[in-house]
Amino acid sequence: MKKYIYSFGRGRVEGNAGMKALLGGKGAGLAEMTRLGIPVPPGFTITTEACIAFFECGKRYPDGMWEGVLSALKRVEKAKGEKFGDPDNPLLVSVRSGARASMPGMMDTILNVGLNDQTVVGLAKKSKNEQFAYDAYRRFVAMFGNIVMGVKREVFEEKLTEVKQTLHVAHDTDLPVADLIELVKAYKDIIRKWTGKSLPSNPLDQLKTAIDAVFNSWFGARAVTYRRLNQIPETWGTAVNIVAMVFGNMGETSGTGVAFTRDPISGKRQFFGEFLSNAQGEDVVAGIRTPSPIVALKNTMPDVYCHLTAIAENLERHYRDMLDLEFTVEKGQLYLLQTRVGKRTATAAVQIAVDMVKEKRIRVEEALLRQDPLGLDQLLHPTVDTKAKVHVIAKGLPASPGAAIGRVVFTAEDAERWAQRKERVILVRSETSPEDIGGMHVAEGILTTRGGMTSHAAVVARGMGKCCVVGCPDLVVDTVGKSFTARAVTVKEGEVITLNGSTGEVILGEVALVQPTLSSAFKTLMKWADGTRTLKVRTNAETIHDAHVARGFGAEGIGLCRTEHMFFNGDRIQAIREMILADTTEQRQLALSKLLPMQKEDFIGIFKEMHGLPVTIRLLDPPLHEFLPHTDEELASLARSMGVSVGCLRAKNQELHELNPMLGHRGCRLGVVYPEIYAMQVRAIFEAACELMASRVRVTPEVMIPLVADVREFSAMKTLCETTASEVMVRYKKKVSYTIGTMIELPRAALVADKIAKEAAFFSFGTNDLTQTVFGLSRDDAGRFLPAYIENGIFPQDPFAVIDQEGVGAIMRICVEKGRGASPTLKLGICGEHGGEPTSVIFCHQIGLDYVSCSPYRVPIARLAAAQAAIMGKGHPAERAA
Amino acid sequence: MKKYIYSFGRGRVEGNAGMKALLGGKGAGLAEMTRLGIPVPPGFTITTEACIAFFECGKRYPDGMWEGVLSALKRVEKAKGEKFGDPDNPLLVSVRSGARASMPGMMDTILNVGLNDQTVVGLAKKSKNEQFAYDAYRRFVAMFGNIVMGVKREVFEEKLTEVKQTLHVAHDTDLPVADLIELVKAYKDIIRKWTGKSLPSNPLDQLKTAIDAVFNSWFGARAVTYRRLNQIPETWGTAVNIVAMVFGNMGETSGTGVAFTRDPISGKRQFFGEFLSNAQGEDVVAGIRTPSPIVALKNTMPDVYCHLTAIAENLERHYRDMLDLEFTVEKGQLYLLQTRVGKRTATAAVQIAVDMVKEKRIRVEEALLRQDPLGLDQLLHPTVDTKAKVHVIAKGLPASPGAAIGRVVFTAEDAERWAQRKERVILVRSETSPEDIGGMHVAEGILTTRGGMTSHAAVVARGMGKCCVVGCPDLVVDTVGKSFTARAVTVKEGEVITLNGSTGEVILGEVALVQPTLSSAFKTLMKWADGTRTLKVRTNAETIHDAHVARGFGAEGIGLCRTEHMFFNGDRIQAIREMILADTTEQRQLALSKLLPMQKEDFIGIFKEMHGLPVTIRLLDPPLHEFLPHTDEELASLARSMGVSVGCLRAKNQELHELNPMLGHRGCRLGVVYPEIYAMQVRAIFEAACELMASRVRVTPEVMIPLVADVREFSAMKTLCETTASEVMVRYKKKVSYTIGTMIELPRAALVADKIAKEAAFFSFGTNDLTQTVFGLSRDDAGRFLPAYIENGIFPQDPFAVIDQEGVGAIMRICVEKGRGASPTLKLGICGEHGGEPTSVIFCHQIGLDYVSCSPYRVPIARLAAAQAAIMGKGHPAERAA
Repeated sequence: MKKYIYSFGRGRVEGNAGMKALLGGKGAGLAEMTRLGIPVPPGFTITTEACIAFFECGKRYPDGMWEGVLSALKRVEKAKGEKFGDPDNPLLVSVRSGARASMPGMMDTILNVGLNDQTVVGLAKKSKNEQFAYDAYRRFVAMFGNIVMGVKREVFEEKLTEVKQTLHVAHDTDLPVADLIELVKAYKDIIRKWTGKSLPSNPLDQLKTAIDAVFNSWFGARAVTYRRLNQIPETWGTAVNIVAMVFGNMGETSGTGVAFTRDPISGKRQFFGEFLSNAQGEDVVAGIRTPSPIVALKNTMPDVYCHLTAIAENLERHYRDMLDLEFTVEKGQLYLLQTRVGKRTATAAVQIAVDMVKEKRIRVEEALLRQDPLGLDQLLHPTVDTKAKVHVIAKGLPASPGAAIGRVVFTAEDAERWAQRKERVILVRSETSPEDIGGMHVAEGILTTRGGMTSHAAVVARGMGKCCVVGCPDLVVDTVGKSFTARAVTVKEGEVITLNGSTGEVILGEVALVQPTLSSAFKTLMKWADGTRTLKVRTNAETIHDAHVARGFGAEGIGLCRTEHMFFNGDRIQAIREMILADTTEQRQLALSKLLPMQKEDFIGIFKEMHGLPVTIRLLDPPLHEFLPHTDEELASLARSMGVSVGCLRAKNQELHELNPMLGHRGCRLGVVYPEIYAMQVRAIFEAACELMASRVRVTPEVMIPLVADVREFSAMKTLCETTASEVMVRYKKKVSYTIGTMIELPRAALVADKIAKEAAFFSFGTNDLTQTVFGLSRDDAGRFLPAYIENGIFPQDPFAVIDQEGVGAIMRICVEKGRGASPTLKLGICGEHGGEPTSVIFCHQIGLDYVSCSPYRVPIARLAAAQAAIMGKGHPAERAA
Repeated sequence: MKKYIYSFGRGRVEGNAGMKALLGGKGAGLAEMTRLGIPVPPGFTITTEACIAFFECGKRYPDGMWEGVLSALKRVEKAKGEKFGDPDNPLLVSVRSGARASMPGMMDTILNVGLNDQTVVGLAKKSKNEQFAYDAYRRFVAMFGNIVMGVKREVFEEKLTEVKQTLHVAHDTDLPVADLIELVKAYKDIIRKWTGKSLPSNPLDQLKTAIDAVFNSWFGARAVTYRRLNQIPETWGTAVNIVAMVFGNMGETSGTGVAFTRDPISGKRQFFGEFLSNAQGEDVVAGIRTPSPIVALKNTMPDVYCHLTAIAENLERHYRDMLDLEFTVEKGQLYLLQTRVGKRTATAAVQIAVDMVKEKRIRVEEALLRQDPLGLDQLLHPTVDTKAKVHVIAKGLPASPGAAIGRVVFTAEDAERWAQRKERVILVRSETSPEDIGGMHVAEGILTTRGGMTSHAAVVARGMGKCCVVGCPDLVVDTVGKSFTARAVTVKEGEVITLNGSTGEVILGEVALVQPTLSSAFKTLMKWADGTRTLKVRTNAETIHDAHVARGFGAEGIGLCRTEHMFFNGDRIQAIREMILADTTEQRQLALSKLLPMQKEDFIGIFKEMHGLPVTIRLLDPPLHEFLPHTDEELASLARSMGVSVGCLRAKNQELHELNPMLGHRGCRLGVVYPEIYAMQVRAIFEAACELMASRVRVTPEVMIPLVADVREFSAMKTLCETTASEVMVRYKKKVSYTIGTMIELPRAALVADKIAKEAAFFSFGTNDLTQTVFGLSRDDAGRFLPAYIENGIFPQDPFAVIDQEGVGAIMRICVEKGRGASPTLKLGICGEHGGEPTSVIFCHQIGLDYVSCSPYRVPIARLAAAQAAIMGKGHPAERAA
């Protein structure tokens, strides 16, 4: 029979840190802490395999599991010297989930299991604190009623508030025993009323239904959402930890806290955390009471503080990473309830990794692998300009740094609704709870009135890399009226505010942002990444500004300069429209001759900025009608200024209309039909290059032909480019070193890559269009069904965000194989949006590309991902610690 | 040094029939005839390799070629007892092209080379016919001036007409010598005036420039057009035949003719042809004078007729095919000038092939390979209803059978222009010439006032399988006024006429057509095809009528029944619109419940018609907005009848609008988002099947899921279908044997075919959409650039007409390999338009498909092509004789 139960605590231990997949993070941590001699309450873990078996058996326990639970419970009773259900000396336990990957707040926890009308008397006697015992009973009934029996939490809270108001009592702990007893009764009535069932009074029934509830919560809506957002397979299942209760709410020598072995915001090596005296753990995590900083413990309980910091140091050394600890002090006795790798800001992640290399705790490769490349995004994005004149209306705790500007919304649902309309929103709540995950995900920033630095909002926002301000008591939220008031200013739904996640300031209106300064740790890490990776990183840029930013971020060239973007500027659109509306080649050439000097000027700017680095220029790609005016007013105005009739313009517009422009007259198909357009562009490129050579700027243009399906198409365009280029070079008496290549964005190009490779110097995968054609899926139209596809698990991810390795990747492999087979020196790159997405970058490394090209802010992300790909390629395990 | 020259005639022969690639059809035929002892004028062939070398050397003769010409010329002089350029005893030669494939009239011919002011005197003396000699000289100057020097033919003709009118002379042959001499001078002046150059008088210069002209005509516009239309590679080149002149215009014992060894229209075994006495060959081919039937020769020159028929029998037995012969009689002496496989109607092709098998001249495999499958189309299409009351306005020769209805046009350019506007046209000319090829290609039928059964129009039309009436002297064409008059009726451009190619009748207006009766030879051939092929042939049909027609043509099932086509009928569009506009699932289900009985009724009809054969039903595929009203009127009317506001309808219309509907919300994406639609369709299918089973109709539905990109998508839809199907079967207490499969129309489906094959019972290649996605090419929008692509040779063919084997074919191969690898019993078919295109059918056989499915009229074509594929697969040479 399979072993489904692993015990730990008070010297006995069956699991260890390496058994995360089987015991979940929490269970493995508890086992490992026991091994290290750290005080942990006795308990046991039901394995994830039991969870999977539970679902496979149609929600029944697998053979032997329940017997295992009973015998492990006996060991806990023995260790604690208490008996489960014993009215005189009752053992109470917590039942907590513990999945393989950290899923903060996602799974349900039930405390004080084992309490009933009999055992509560025993607890009161034993603790010599009737008030405490009945408060625990009250909490248990509410929690059980909520999580296991499905009654809304608010119903119990309303009742509690009602009683407190009647009695004029401020804190729960001040409620008289008699009223607590009445409250328990009232809670039980509520449960009966709402569910038609009674709370089980038999402790073993309680335990069994609590275990069921944890198992079932694996398929709860929040867990499913979290798994989808974090790409966690549902086949992992969750473990269940059953741990003897210890109480932080047994008076002033008790308390509960959360700590990090280093500062999770800055990454500095200093013990960090919060402590709430006379409280249970749930009070800290829920952010209902604002706790004190952990250093306060130094004064109130110096021994406990000393013990705790020693344990922290011991654990960090053991796990070789920054950890987050949950602990409880019961009457001066310290218990560790949980340890795991701590969530941190991207700044902290970089700082800690670099410091730990310097402290010789980890190697450079590990430091690189531990970073989530996407997290770097936080470090690169602008922050609030401290010199700007701002109207601060409130100040809270700076829970997660950065800046966020958006319209205020007050519910997670509103946040999702607004975000779907492409509105940037800031979610304002009194406190957040796991139900809010979806809304938090789409929000630019999160603001809560309650909670501390380790509250749900704070922890989750840091994990998501989102700006967050918490614990902002100046701020009063009116959820019904959809507004909040702070310092006499009322902000209604839809009004814009700015959050400064680094200072905790809440600012009215939109504030100017400034470029961030990159830390020295960041620079060190990037240097390591550059020394490790083999994949080059270029940028997609068509303005001098973008090229400059990207170069600053380490871009090694331009992988995609979209010439058509240049056409939309100012008076150019006029010239391009004349070009399109030309009826003869001569008229078209006249219009083109107006565009030539403008394009040349653009290229001069970009070439100068990229001095010494290669610049890939894609010739005109989109369907011509994209440039035409579409509203009646625009049409009329253009007709006037061009001296043609509106009717003629409209007719031309109509003529250019396409049913499926994505598959229409675009890319090199324009070049085949209107060679004069491409000739003008090539002339502009080479005139720019020749002129710059005179001033000693090193220019390496790579001319890229878009939307090629066949080698004959490519060859025709190549000849056109070469002819034009040499005409210019002869005229300038210069020799520009250049290459001509193509984008691979149609399946056919990949399928005949061997033939094209014989003619082309380079291939650049245009994975946006390639994804569209491989899937037969228009990016513009997918919105109507793609969400349903991702929700139903038909597509594991949005293929426009992450390369679909199975399909699109398969054809990329075919292309690489055929292309390199025909031309071993063929240069291969990617310039679709995927070029800055970490898993896609790793894939590009694996299939042997030479470079990726991405938007400027993605360049550092790609550099890091490329380094990780190189390390993994050497056989280093792919799993990241974070 | 390479041998560029091959001599023939008068006993000497270096080539043979097998050297067609090197000597061209004409040269190989002349050589072979010499070998067979058939009288052929002495001459020699310059090889196609010389032509290729000529272009490779920048239009210079390759080393040794000219020397070879001179020495071969010496041999001809010796054989003929004449000398080239000798003023007393001049040798004259013709210079004719001769490509590998028969290209009637496409290449230029120059006769009487060697004539000048001196040699013409010798010719006159020798022939004792001054009139003949100067007429020959006149012809030569005009021909040389036209073909070699580029002066328009009309200019010479105008001059000739002018002189004839001045002298009141009707026939060229009646012109006095003095006037002929003047005419030659005038022609020479014309050449000087138009070109600034003089006609070369040195016979060797004439020969050289004539050879150049033949070579150059290989890249002449007409030749390029013909090659494109007939898929002849330009690397083949043309040979040049230089043959001693023999003269059919030396009086009444001379003449020239064209003959076929069997009737090229009916295929009957009877000698067929035409003869023109006292004429040169060009007069017959150009159709300027209407010749007499060949049997007339029996009376006028019985010896020649006897000799000719003996030669014909000899040649046919030798070549084992029906041949076309060109011959000249010079003063009672017969010379064969050319032989080749004769063009024939499809009817004749079938008849001849079947007869020759019965005569044991060829084997069944050869009979099958010789048919052009596309040609069968002619036999299957309707003909003029002989019982219809018609208004015949003229009667000509029935040159190519069938019926043609179209609007009258008078120039080839107009024909092309009108055809581009999708107008069906009939090209009416006094005679056609090679310049008209493009217009003839797009016309429904061809009508000429002049010419006989072997005129240019007749021969080309038969080759194209187009209805053609020639030699219709009642008819007077006014090309300038764009009208013709016949029997007092004037028909203007754009008016509709009907041609009956089987009777030669020209009928005013549009006439009813009737189904053709299939000949017994056709049935025999088809039986042979069915016995030979391994590929099954199904049809694409969604109406009982189409299913019936296809079954009559031998369809073995339905490969594609497009359910959406059923929705456009009558009041269904109303129900479908209600379905689309539904705001809730319930509303949608209500609308669907109205559609259910209609769909069921359709399926009952089709299942009954296809009793015992499989029927593949594709579930709803197109984007929903295709069904919505698009004009304001339609919108208003629908809104009224649905009781919703126009605004609401317009909004919904707008909401359903897609930028790229081809890549949008269609196919199984509809089924994923609105499963109730597919459920309704599946219910209709299975209710129909169950009800028919009760009346003992054998039904085998194959449910096909469209636009699948991923196996999870397919599985979800499969589950939906299976659940619905079993629900129906339980209700009816019946067991329908059915399968569920998918279309392969997206590259991704092919790339993950191994996974899909584990779930799907069959794959059907939807090559229309697959071509669109592989090329990234919208069929609807390609019109703007596809013609330029085909013209420039970037695409050898329209990939929507003929499977692109290199690209689309490559991904089909990948799919077949992966699919069969994962599921060896996987059934594979094709249901795109390509399923009825012969080369595509052959490709489908080669990659191992089980069946092709095509439109009803293509079924026999596919059956024949499938047979050819099977024969070629056994190693039989792929080249067809025709």
